[in-house]
Amino acid sequence: MAVSFRELLGASVARSNSLISVGLDPVIGRLPGITGASSTRQIGDAMVAFNRTIVEATLPFAAAYKPNLAFYLPLGADGVRALIETRELIPADVPVILDAKANDLGNTAQHYAEAFLGTWGFDAVTINPFMGEEGMRPFFERTGKGLFVLARTSNSGSADFQELVVGPGGETLSDRVATRVAAWGDVYPATIGMVVGATWPEQVARLRTLAPEAPILLPGVGAQGGDVEGSVRAGCDAHGGGLIVHAGRSIAFAGEGADAGLAAARAAEALRDEINRCRPVAQVPA
Amino acid sequence: MAVSFRELLGASVARSNSLISVGLDPVIGRLPGITGASSTRQIGDAMVAFNRTIVEATLPFAAAYKPNLAFYLPLGADGVRALIETRELIPADVPVILDAKANDLGNTAQHYAEAFLGTWGFDAVTINPFMGEEGMRPFFERTGKGLFVLARTSNSGSADFQELVVGPGGETLSDRVATRVAAWGDVYPATIGMVVGATWPEQVARLRTLAPEAPILLPGVGAQGGDVEGSVRAGCDAHGGGLIVHAGRSIAFAGEGADAGLAAARAAEALRDEINRCRPVAQVPA
Repeated sequence: MAVSFRELLGASVARSNSLISVGLDPVIGRLPGITGASSTRQIGDAMVAFNRTIVEATLPFAAAYKPNLAFYLPLGADGVRALIETRELIPADVPVILDAKANDLGNTAQHYAEAFLGTWGFDAVTINPFMGEEGMRPFFERTGKGLFVLARTSNSGSADFQELVVGPGGETLSDRVATRVAAWGDVYPATIGMVVGATWPEQVARLRTLAPEAPILLPGVGAQGGDVEGSVRAGCDAHGGGLIVHAGRSIAFAGEGADAGLAAARAAEALRDEINRCRPVAQVPA
Repeated sequence: MAVSFRELLGASVARSNSLISVGLDPVIGRLPGITGASSTRQIGDAMVAFNRTIVEATLPFAAAYKPNLAFYLPLGADGVRALIETRELIPADVPVILDAKANDLGNTAQHYAEAFLGTWGFDAVTINPFMGEEGMRPFFERTGKGLFVLARTSNSGSADFQELVVGPGGETLSDRVATRVAAWGDVYPATIGMVVGATWPEQVARLRTLAPEAPILLPGVGAQGGDVEGSVRAGCDAHGGGLIVHAGRSIAFAGEGADAGLAAARAAEALRDEINRCRPVAQVPA
C-alpha cells in the first residue's frame, strides 16, 4: 500500500526523535582534494564523497535531507549526476527534499515533476506559487509525494512582494499562499506543505494558524541567524510535529577536512537536542 | 568592448528583420528514432539532432531562441548535456534565452547565475520575482547578460496571485513587478526585461506603460492561443522594438519526421511576417 509523504516524514521523525533536515549543498571551494585542474567529473565525484561523509555522520540525528539544486548545476551534466548519486546515498525510509523552487505553466511543470519526483527519485520538492494553482497541479497530483510551497522565504529581501497587503484585515501575499496551501491540501493527493523562514517567527505563528495541518519546512536557522526557539514553538502543529527545521551550512560545514564528519554529527545532535527542548508537548488529538 | 544584452538583441532583430523567438522544447514522444529501449544518452542525442534541424531551418527568421530547462531534466545528466549542446548549435550573435524561472535567496541564486549565464553559456534567463530583489541581485549584476522577470505569465491560472491588488488605484502584483523592473533597469548593469503573456493583451499595454524601456518576452502565441496583433501593438516600445514574441510548439512541431525542418521554417517565416505587419512604425527617438 502506498505511503503518503506525511506518513514517511512522520515515521522518520519518530525514529530519529528529530525535526531536523540536513543540507547537502557542497561548496566547490571547500571540498577536499579539489584543485584548479580538476575536471567537472572529478569535482562531481568529490561532491558525492563529501555528501557521503555528511550523510553517514548525521543519519542518527536527521529526520530528512535537503540538497539544493543550484549548488550542482554549475558543473553541468556532471553536477546532475552528482545530485542523483547523492539522493541514492540516503536510505529509502528517510525523506529527501529537493530544493528547486520549481515553477512553470502546467504543461511544462509536468516535466519538472517527472524529473524531480520521478526519474531523479526525490520524495518532495520545493515549489514557487507565483504562477498559480494551474502551474502547481502536476506536482500536487503526485500521490505519495510532498510539496513545500514558498509562503515566506527566509531571505532579507522576502518582504518586497511577500509582505504586500492583498486583502482585508492586513492579509499579506504570504497569508494568501498559506490559506491556499491549506485548501489545496484538502483536495489533492500529494502532501502539501509550505516553506516559512525561521527569520520571521511572528509570520511562522500566523501562517501556522492559517494552515494548521500543512507540514512546514523551516529554513534560516544557523548561518542565517533565525530564531530557533520562537519558530519551533510557533511552527509545530497541534500534535507537536508537522515541522522540519532545516540547517544547511551550520551542519555540513561545521568542520573541515578529516574532521568534517565528526563536526557535522556533533552539530546535528546539538541542534536536534536544542529543538527537542523547544518542542511543545504533543496534545491529545481531538 | 562588452556588448549589452540589449545591443545583442537589437542587432539580431535588425539582421533577421524579426521579433520572434523559437522554442527548443523537445517532447520525447515526438522525436524521430526513439523507442522504449532507447537509453537517456540516445534520447539526449535525438533531442540535439531534432534541435539542430529546427535551428538550421529557422535561423533566417529568428531573432532569438529559448529552450525551456524543464524539457531536458527528466533525462538527468544526459538531459543537461543535451541542453548545453543545444545552446552550442546557435551562433554567438543570436541571443539564446534559457527559460528556467529561477529563484532563490542571494547566496544560492549566485550558483544558478553561475550555471545558466556562466558555465552553460546562455545570454539571458527568465527569473521569478517572488523572493524579492535580494534573490535576483546575482543575476542583475551580470554585465552583458539579460534577465526576463516574470510579471504576468501566459498560463490560465496566472491571476491567482499576479492579479491580486496590492496598492492604490487597483495596482496589481504584476504592476508592482513591472514598476520594480523599470527601477532595477536603471541601477543594475544587466539588461532587465520582463515576461508578459500574449494571452493578456490589456496587461501587455499596462505593463509596457509602467516599464517603457524594459524588453518584453511575450510567450503564449500559437498553441496557447494568445492575441498576436493586440499584444504586438501594445508591447513594442517607443522605437517599435523591445519585444520578443516567443513561439514554442507552433514552430518546432509544425511538422513531423522528414518534414519537420521545412514546416518549422514556413511556420517561423509566416509568424515573422504576421508580426511585422502589426509592428508600429518606429517613432523618432526624442
